[in-house]
Order: sequence, then structure tokens, then C-alpha cells
Amino acid sequence: MDALLYWVGMAAVAVSALTGVLDSGRKQMDLIGALLVAVATALGGGTVRDLLLDRNVFWVVDQTYLMAALGTGLLTFFVVRSIDLPPKLFLIPDAVGLALFTVIGTQVALQWHTPWLAASLMGVITGVFGGVLRDILCNDVPSVFLKGELYATAAWLGALSLIGLQELGTSPVNAAWAAMGIILVLRLLALRFGLTLPTLGQTR
Amino acid sequence: MDALLYWVGMAAVAVSALTGVLDSGRKQMDLIGALLVAVATALGGGTVRDLLLDRNVFWVVDQTYLMAALGTGLLTFFVVRSIDLPPKLFLIPDAVGLALFTVIGTQVALQWHTPWLAASLMGVITGVFGGVLRDILCNDVPSVFLKGELYATAAWLGALSLIGLQELGTSPVNAAWAAMGIILVLRLLALRFGLTLPTLGQTR
Amino acid sequence: MDALLYWVGMAAVAVSALTGVLDSGRKQMDLIGALLVAVATALGGGTVRDLLLDRNVFWVVDQTYLMAALGTGLLTFFVVRSIDLPPKLFLIPDAVGLALFTVIGTQVALQWHTPWLAASLMGVITGVFGGVLRDILCNDVPSVFLKGELYATAAWLGALSLIGLQELGTSPVNAAWAAMGIILVLRLLALRFGLTLPTLGQTR
Repeated sequence: MDALLYWVGMAAVAVSALTGVLDSGRKQMDLIGALLVAVATALGGGTVRDLLLDRNVFWVVDQTYLMAALGTGLLTFFVVRSIDLPPKLFLIPDAVGLALFTVIGTQVALQWHTPWLAASLMGVITGVFGGVLRDILCNDVPSVFLKGELYATAAWLGALSLIGLQELGTSPVNAAWAAMGIILVLRLLALRFGLTLPTLGQTR
Repeated sequence: MDALLYWVGMAAVAVSALTGVLDSGRKQMDLIGALLVAVATALGGGTVRDLLLDRNVFWVVDQTYLMAALGTGLLTFFVVRSIDLPPKLFLIPDAVGLALFTVIGTQVALQWHTPWLAASLMGVITGVFGGVLRDILCNDVPSVFLKGELYATAAWLGALSLIGLQELGTSPVNAAWAAMGIILVLRLLALRFGLTLPTLGQTR
Repeated sequence: MDALLYWVGMAAVAVSALTGVLDSGRKQMDLIGALLVAVATALGGGTVRDLLLDRNVFWVVDQTYLMAALGTGLLTFFVVRSIDLPPKLFLIPDAVGLALFTVIGTQVALQWHTPWLAASLMGVITGVFGGVLRDILCNDVPSVFLKGELYATAAWLGALSLIGLQELGTSPVNAAWAAMGIILVLRLLALRFGLTLPTLGQTR
């Protein structure tokens, strides 16, 4: 089970790196610039979580994560230069990565005895901060905060469900599956049907 | 006295969260996006201070701060959607928050045996970094650095006064009141009379 | 030797502060805003390295670095207001600073028993993150990631050479000189002949 989680986590890192490279293409970054954006996207969320919890940063301890991010970034860079991949292809792997990162981040925070609301925010940060960092480095407003994505929303509801279900006596493994299901379904429904939350609008 | 400071600090967190929500309204963020910007604005300065000093992050230890930021953010979001509040309404509470955050941040750094100039910068970071983070997330140039605000300037002069007065023998409580007064007065004078510092201008 | 490195490092901090002030001139920042950008540019890379390695932050321990950044920032501000300096004047000192920061950052990470690839990234972060922070604060796409600079590229190749040469038995001092040479030459060749790495282009 632990080995499974480890490799699924690695896959989520790879998918995030891929979205980082795709995004950097809009900004005339060169190969190394694109790779650094890929690394920031893939490892940024977990890094901020580890700094906030005062843990050892995960990719400094085990640089396999860094290798996965760089390898995928490199591969993506050269594939995208020769084949025109539709960006929509990656929305489902990206949603899986969001679900996974959020659940892992929340569980790590709980194990570190973080109070529940702070732990749910750690899950959200682990899930979405890589994408926020990618958008800041590319000088865009972070898309995870924008209307019509339900990105951070899905992550937060998932993190809260994970905590609530365990509080009610569900086993950690079952709660994790349920939370990942909630995040995936919400995110895919948002993409499919354009679900939105209210905004403040351009009122000012 | 400590209990008073605690609750005044909580009020400053709430005011900062409010300005975060108001700002996010210009960028088509949805409810959860706005709440996350509110949390970053309210807790960002103290978080960076705690990371730099290698302390436990304050809102991870006591999530009451997080609840205050989220609760105020939520309330602001729904009030602003129904009533049109003039943004100027919040300039005075915001200046009070700046004064308070700066003084608390400087004192925490001094207690942590930080050398004086670094401690004054910790005060400035605690006071202004939340607003910097808010503006970065909203993809603006941080307003605290811009001409005609005297925002970071007031914070820095206040932090240096706090340290200098204690060095001269003033009690910490009196020095704190004096420093908060200096920050408030400078900030309000800047708003009222448009005081400015020199800029480099568009010379290049 | 250690004393030499200390003061050369201090000079690199000063040069970085100078580029921070020059950049802030394009954004109508006031004096204190420009000084804070200068501090972020000069100390940002080493700060992130120290946070990631869980070391004490270097300028909190020894505030001489902070004084060097502020002093140089202040001087630059007033010199630039009266004399029109060509920005190209600073490209060579800046390249020296890049080489030095990268080598110091990589060596510190190796001493902290960081695995090699992560250590090389620490070198890159120490070398370039100050500039990234400067560009984020000035609301630009970080120039170190852009085509035609070979900035992060030179830093990374230098960091990898430093590690590889030591692995092959070269003394740390000789490896450091070689790595600094590689970074400087690559960066200056890029500036002189417009060397570039491939980009993803505006394909999407």
C-alpha cells in the first residue's frame, strides 16, 4: 500500500511537471526556464506544506521526486515541440494529481498533529500551490482562484471530507478513497457542466 | 495585557482578510479563491516572519487566527455583494492593522535574539508582506512599494523607533504605544496630504 | 581564504541590490519600496536555500549582509537619480555575482548532505532566485527564465560541474574556480553572441 502510494505520488509529480512546461510555452521561456517552472509546479505545493509544518522538505530528502519532475519536463518539452497535443488531454490526469496531492498533504499534516482546519488548508496548499506558483512565475493571475474552475474548492471539500470521515470512525484508507472520489467528481463536473461559485464580480 | 494584545491581533487579522477579499473582487475570483487570497493577506506576513526566525508558524499552532481570517473573509464576501461599501472606509482599520502587525513582528524578532536591523525588517515584513502577497496573487505591482503610500516607510520608521526607544530605556509597553502612534500618524498624514518619498521615476 | 570568500560574497550581495534598485525604477516605487526590492533581490536566493535546507537564515544570523544590501541600495538610488548610468555597465558584475552565489549555494547544500541533483538545484536557486523575486515584485515574467539569457542555464551547468569535478577528485577550491569560470564564460558568451536554448515558442 505504501509503495503504491509512493509511485502514484510520483506519477502526480510527473503530471504537474508536464502542465508547468505546457504553460511556460506561452511566455518565450527557454528549455531551462521551462524545466524550472516544471519543477516549481510539481514540487511547490509539497514544499510549502513541509516548510509550514517544519518538516524536512520531501524532495531534498528523496531526490527521486526531483528526477521525476525534470525527466517528465524534458520529455514534454521535446514532445510538444514536434507534436501538437491538445491541452484538454491533460485535464483528467491533472485532476487525479490534484486529488492525490490534496489527500497526501492533509494526511501528512494530521500525522504532524496539526489542528483540523489548518490541516485541511495544508491539503489545499499541497494540491494547488504548485499551480499558483506556475502562474505567478508566468505572470498570470493564478487560475486555481478564478471563477469556473472549482479547483481549490474541490480540493478543500475533499480535504474536509477526509478529516470528517476519519473523525466519524472511517478507516484512513477508506476516507482517502472517498476524498479522492469527491475531488475528482467535483472537478470533472465543473469542467463538464461549467459549475461555478459566486464571484464578487467587477463591482468596483 | 497579553489577552488584550491577543484579541487586538485577531482584529488586525480580520481587517487584513477583509482587504484581501475586496481586492480579489477586481479579478473574477470565485468565493474560495477570494477566501484563499484573504487568508494569504491576513496570515502571510506573520508566516514569513515565523519561517525566517525558524519558529512554529503561529496559525498552525493556534488555528483561531485562521478561523478569524476565514470568517471575516466569508462575511465580507457576502456583505460586499449586497451593499456597496466605499473602499476608503477601511483605510483607518487597515492602518491600525499595519501598526499592530509591525510592532508585534518586531517584538517577536527581538525576543528571538535577532540583531536590531534584521529585527526591524521582520517588523516590516510582518506588517506589509500580507499585502504584498495579496497583490502578487492578484497580479499587481505590490502597492506598499509604490509612491505616495508611505506604507512600508511608516512601518519601518515605527519598527526602528520601537527598537531605539527600548535601547534608550523606555519600557516595552510604552515603546510599543509610541511606535504604533508613529506608524498610524505617518500613514494617515500620507493619506491626507499625499506625502511622498522620492522615486527613481521613469528615467530608464 | 574564508575571509576572502566572505567579502567577495558581500560584494555579490551589493551588486544584486544595485540591480534591484535599477529595476524598481521602471515601476514608480518610492525610496523604501526600491530598498525593499533591493533587499529581496540581494538576499532572496540565499534565504530560500536556507529555508529549504532548514538552516538558520544567513542574514538573520549576520546582519552585515542586510547592511550591505541596504547601503548599496541607498547609494544606487541617489546616484542613479543624478547620473544616467547605462544598465549594460552592470552586466559583468552581475555575472560575477551569479557565479559566486551559485557556487556558494551548491557548496553549502553539499555540506548539508543534500543529494547531488537537489544540491545543484540549491545552487541554481541561490544564484537566480533573487532575480526571480525582483521580477515578481516588479510584476514581470522572471527574465532568468526567458530565451536568450542563458542565465539559469549557466548557473545549472556550473553547479553540476562543481559537483562532478569534486566527485572526480578535484579539490573543492579548484572545482569552485572551474565552476565560476564556466558560469562566467557561458553567461558572457550568451550576452556577446546571443546564444539561445530552444523554446516552446508561441505554439499554443
